[in-house]
Amino acid sequence: MYELGVCYRNITRTDRDTTDRLAALGSATVHEAMGRVGLLKPYMRPIYPGAQVSGTAVTVLLHPGDNWMMHVVAEQIQPGDIVVAAITAECTDGYFGDLLATSFQARGARALVIDAGVRDVKTLKEMNFPVWSKAISSKGTIKATLGSVNIPVVCAGAWVTPGDVIVADDDGVVCVPRAMAEKTLEAAVAREAMEGAKRDKLASGVLGLDMYKMREPLAALGLKYID
Amino acid sequence: MYELGVCYRNITRTDRDTTDRLAALGSATVHEAMGRVGLLKPYMRPIYPGAQVSGTAVTVLLHPGDNWMMHVVAEQIQPGDIVVAAITAECTDGYFGDLLATSFQARGARALVIDAGVRDVKTLKEMNFPVWSKAISSKGTIKATLGSVNIPVVCAGAWVTPGDVIVADDDGVVCVPRAMAEKTLEAAVAREAMEGAKRDKLASGVLGLDMYKMREPLAALGLKYID
Amino acid sequence: MYELGVCYRNITRTDRDTTDRLAALGSATVHEAMGRVGLLKPYMRPIYPGAQVSGTAVTVLLHPGDNWMMHVVAEQIQPGDIVVAAITAECTDGYFGDLLATSFQARGARALVIDAGVRDVKTLKEMNFPVWSKAISSKGTIKATLGSVNIPVVCAGAWVTPGDVIVADDDGVVCVPRAMAEKTLEAAVAREAMEGAKRDKLASGVLGLDMYKMREPLAALGLKYID
Amino acid sequence: MYELGVCYRNITRTDRDTTDRLAALGSATVHEAMGRVGLLKPYMRPIYPGAQVSGTAVTVLLHPGDNWMMHVVAEQIQPGDIVVAAITAECTDGYFGDLLATSFQARGARALVIDAGVRDVKTLKEMNFPVWSKAISSKGTIKATLGSVNIPVVCAGAWVTPGDVIVADDDGVVCVPRAMAEKTLEAAVAREAMEGAKRDKLASGVLGLDMYKMREPLAALGLKYID
Amino acid sequence: MYELGVCYRNITRTDRDTTDRLAALGSATVHEAMGRVGLLKPYMRPIYPGAQVSGTAVTVLLHPGDNWMMHVVAEQIQPGDIVVAAITAECTDGYFGDLLATSFQARGARALVIDAGVRDVKTLKEMNFPVWSKAISSKGTIKATLGSVNIPVVCAGAWVTPGDVIVADDDGVVCVPRAMAEKTLEAAVAREAMEGAKRDKLASGVLGLDMYKMREPLAALGLKYID
Amino acid sequence: MYELGVCYRNITRTDRDTTDRLAALGSATVHEAMGRVGLLKPYMRPIYPGAQVSGTAVTVLLHPGDNWMMHVVAEQIQPGDIVVAAITAECTDGYFGDLLATSFQARGARALVIDAGVRDVKTLKEMNFPVWSKAISSKGTIKATLGSVNIPVVCAGAWVTPGDVIVADDDGVVCVPRAMAEKTLEAAVAREAMEGAKRDKLASGVLGLDMYKMREPLAALGLKYID
Repeated sequence: MYELGVCYRNITRTDRDTTDRLAALGSATVHEAMGRVGLLKPYMRPIYPGAQVSGTAVTVLLHPGDNWMMHVVAEQIQPGDIVVAAITAECTDGYFGDLLATSFQARGARALVIDAGVRDVKTLKEMNFPVWSKAISSKGTIKATLGSVNIPVVCAGAWVTPGDVIVADDDGVVCVPRAMAEKTLEAAVAREAMEGAKRDKLASGVLGLDMYKMREPLAALGLKYID
Repeated sequence: MYELGVCYRNITRTDRDTTDRLAALGSATVHEAMGRVGLLKPYMRPIYPGAQVSGTAVTVLLHPGDNWMMHVVAEQIQPGDIVVAAITAECTDGYFGDLLATSFQARGARALVIDAGVRDVKTLKEMNFPVWSKAISSKGTIKATLGSVNIPVVCAGAWVTPGDVIVADDDGVVCVPRAMAEKTLEAAVAREAMEGAKRDKLASGVLGLDMYKMREPLAALGLKYID
Repeated sequence: MYELGVCYRNITRTDRDTTDRLAALGSATVHEAMGRVGLLKPYMRPIYPGAQVSGTAVTVLLHPGDNWMMHVVAEQIQPGDIVVAAITAECTDGYFGDLLATSFQARGARALVIDAGVRDVKTLKEMNFPVWSKAISSKGTIKATLGSVNIPVVCAGAWVTPGDVIVADDDGVVCVPRAMAEKTLEAAVAREAMEGAKRDKLASGVLGLDMYKMREPLAALGLKYID
Repeated sequence: MYELGVCYRNITRTDRDTTDRLAALGSATVHEAMGRVGLLKPYMRPIYPGAQVSGTAVTVLLHPGDNWMMHVVAEQIQPGDIVVAAITAECTDGYFGDLLATSFQARGARALVIDAGVRDVKTLKEMNFPVWSKAISSKGTIKATLGSVNIPVVCAGAWVTPGDVIVADDDGVVCVPRAMAEKTLEAAVAREAMEGAKRDKLASGVLGLDMYKMREPLAALGLKYID
Repeated sequence: MYELGVCYRNITRTDRDTTDRLAALGSATVHEAMGRVGLLKPYMRPIYPGAQVSGTAVTVLLHPGDNWMMHVVAEQIQPGDIVVAAITAECTDGYFGDLLATSFQARGARALVIDAGVRDVKTLKEMNFPVWSKAISSKGTIKATLGSVNIPVVCAGAWVTPGDVIVADDDGVVCVPRAMAEKTLEAAVAREAMEGAKRDKLASGVLGLDMYKMREPLAALGLKYID
Repeated sequence: MYELGVCYRNITRTDRDTTDRLAALGSATVHEAMGRVGLLKPYMRPIYPGAQVSGTAVTVLLHPGDNWMMHVVAEQIQPGDIVVAAITAECTDGYFGDLLATSFQARGARALVIDAGVRDVKTLKEMNFPVWSKAISSKGTIKATLGSVNIPVVCAGAWVTPGDVIVADDDGVVCVPRAMAEKTLEAAVAREAMEGAKRDKLASGVLGLDMYKMREPLAALGLKYID
């Protein structure tokens, strides 16, 4: 449930070093490390391929077709933040373009995650300002109604609290709650550490069936091989 | 309501110079300049990124799974035109591929905008023939029924009259009615002229809240800052 | 109707030479050569543009959110195969990532076609392992239930029998039944052979209306030109 | 292209008798009688089954999440009208409920056709005020921006001009342009007149293959019967 | 892969008694009895609630917007059949209305299952002729191209072979292959037989946790109760 | 972010009387009374029309295709509760049928709200046990993995905390947070109290334009009437 017409100025951000180290691990590994929760719905796609970032969430709640609060959230951005924008109803309008991106970037924002549309995508790519969005649309928005800044929001089906860590790449967007960030980082690092050896084995032709010792449990469940 | 089985040969195209100058402004700025109307639905996407064009609309109405009228419209193309194809019912079939593109390009067409599917997209990219479409599909079409050429059509939710200006880029597709083209160009140019200065200010860290003098109206609506 | 809990080890693959020659013709031409059937639904998209492959189908049937059988099918891969994965219900989870791709590639697989999601797409592109999928998602899967390997499956609306030929490129994915592969290859080659001459004619400005002698049948149906 | 901020008070309605007689023929027969054009997309569904109406269109163009112009169009309603509401972007909000329905009904409106959502559907059914809509939603709307009344609109993919006839029933919604209404009525009546005899024949077991003399053309196209 | 332009006259239908007894068990129980396979996608919905039928499948493959083969399949209907209609590409057109329903009913068909649209739904309900479809649409179809009758088809994601049993009700549509019909019937009857006792227990307040002895396995997996 | 594998037994429910009185006001009025927030997405539809309920939320988080936790939540139901079920990924499977409904009803549950599918809908209607769901599907589920009970969940885009009030009817589903329930009830009652008088005025032909004094603000914004 949303509190409307408020802007929280003091939020507790996840530790910077923990936040930053999560980027390299990627959304898939981080998502696994959290126990397969925290993922935004897969309709959230990057507007250009290749970006991989992490940052602390500052949130904004907007109304359909109205991007006024984008200017309010801009002031709350600190270097290393990622803006997470939720809308009170389904909307594909272009809430964000090169001017706002210039402002966000000047404040130190690393990316935008928005459950709606954006525009000026060619310029955003040239500016190297990544966005994960539901749509791309030339349609502009008005500035008429109050939403809120830095309240917890539901964005693309995920619950995001200001200060949480956002990890986003070509595979999608994951939200790591602040309280779980350090533990998640450790689990993700551990997970990744094992992957190199596994990859080498699989590349040499060893089968997952053997490497993971799956033949016995599969047979126990009744898998039949037929020649 | 559609008149079927007709091909209008004489249409009044928007002035060439006005048409051509709209390309550089882009679909988002043009859409704003028109008062936020005229946009085709955002499911219309370019088959490859980076193209930015404007041109005069020649229109074609097709039936589901039947691309016969594409050959009729080809003859009506003049250099600088963009073909706008509407379908009488939802369809994702591939109505258009490299052969038709070769023909359209030979006649001087700059692009195709189609509320259905296309194919041979790799070749179309190599040919530098941009298409905005609803789908990509290998599925071919038959040649059995009559549609119409150069009648007004509804394409992806927008009303397009032959001779209107189409502006298309990575953000989407906008239709500018002939009668509004000059005024829209002026408004778009004026809008763009202001953007450079704004961008510099925002890049320097000035906030939109201050630049657009938004603090007072936001407070008047009741926005509360909470520390 | 699916047989569950079985893995067929001996399947009859389409002749290698026939299979391999179909790649260059592309999915659109092959689809036409088969009489416009055999296409997977157009929501199946490549995870990166530009790949164009053909291969013999090995199939796997999976349950929603469970990728265990991916390891069973890995063992059945022979060089030149393409894995075709169907799910018993709609699912967008990421069933496949860089580790499985390493294993599949080590076994000689050329691609994966999956009616669900995949992840690690940046790495898959670097590995040059193409995938056609319904979604991209960081969400991982569990390993708990039995599906089947090398049974006939419905994948994205198409019936795929193990050993059939899969042709996939930027336009989509086509399945050519083994019994029709040779005849389809011949028809596709013949079709392609005619395209060069047609393209030259169209590029020179000859209209399809004349080249295909369409004016008469269009007039017979009642097409009216209005000046 | 839409003219914003205007309300046309004088529109030319289709002849009342012609309009009213189209209801009984139903949307499917009317759609056929027009040559299979004029249909709103099939996502437009009645909020309760069984209503079958025709009326003259008064139109309203609304912005996403803003129903202010509904009150402006209410004043323009004359007995026998059907309100056709288009939105400038995709929206599922509930623009219309029992209070507006009371007002519309008091003015003589027969129905609402809206490319968005409505609410209070249980009460609307009790009031016997039929609506065809894209969605049902409790979500209310604001009253902040100007749209237009009685301009031509694109509603659910169909072009509707004020004064046209709307025919709506469980099968969908068709728009008959004023200029075609009389001719369409005649064609629809003729079509319906033939249906009784056909139905009797088919009910007696006569096949369409014989009644429509289809065996020969099917054989000519190559249909093969296999025992 | 589809064979086009053929009509198979001799198909082997599932035993009548077995077929007929499956209706009362319903699609959910039958689907469970088959091991949770054979279900058509859940977008297939009844055009009116309450019908519950089973019958032997006669199949027809149609092209988008073309219902000609409906007349060919009509002749192949025997009392107790259900017509299963697949389309070669996505389509929502109304392929079927009251006249065809009259013909199908006269031949003894019990229902239609179609992966597209139908119309005249009010009349179909009055006729007591149930249909499960993807859409309802007034849009008619042409009669121009050959499909096939009584070949195996993919309908809404399920593989249906002529003579299989179709079970359809408010929960959806299931296809039971002929070879599995008897075994499925037995399993479904057994399943149903146990349900009465279970229902009584649950109605008396006994929990599934106890009735199914779930507490121990849940605890073994680590479920923690927190007061 | 979800805590997995836990079942909270003690939750603080909203006051019973407040909860119960919200039902009669309906989801639309309650949604307005909360300031237009708290609505579940409009794809959530009742499985049969006419039910109108309120109750206190007990929540359950499930995995795709696995309904095991439904039995865990059953034990936590108290008379007057509504079960709110969220899934960790998109799924349309039938998680709930007549047996579980019998158990839920025996425990005193008033309804189920589930962001997935249900089955046995004909029996559920006969039992008078209302469900709001995303889908209807015969497809059953397995019992293999742990979710959680009575943790806060995101259901159909809305944040639901155990003990909140759920209001559901033909217009949709609204969640009223416990802390806001009393204030919302007051606001909704006040809102409803004014509606009778408004309805009478509108029924007598008074226009909203006059009743709400809209003419002046519309003119101020520039609305032009054209004769």
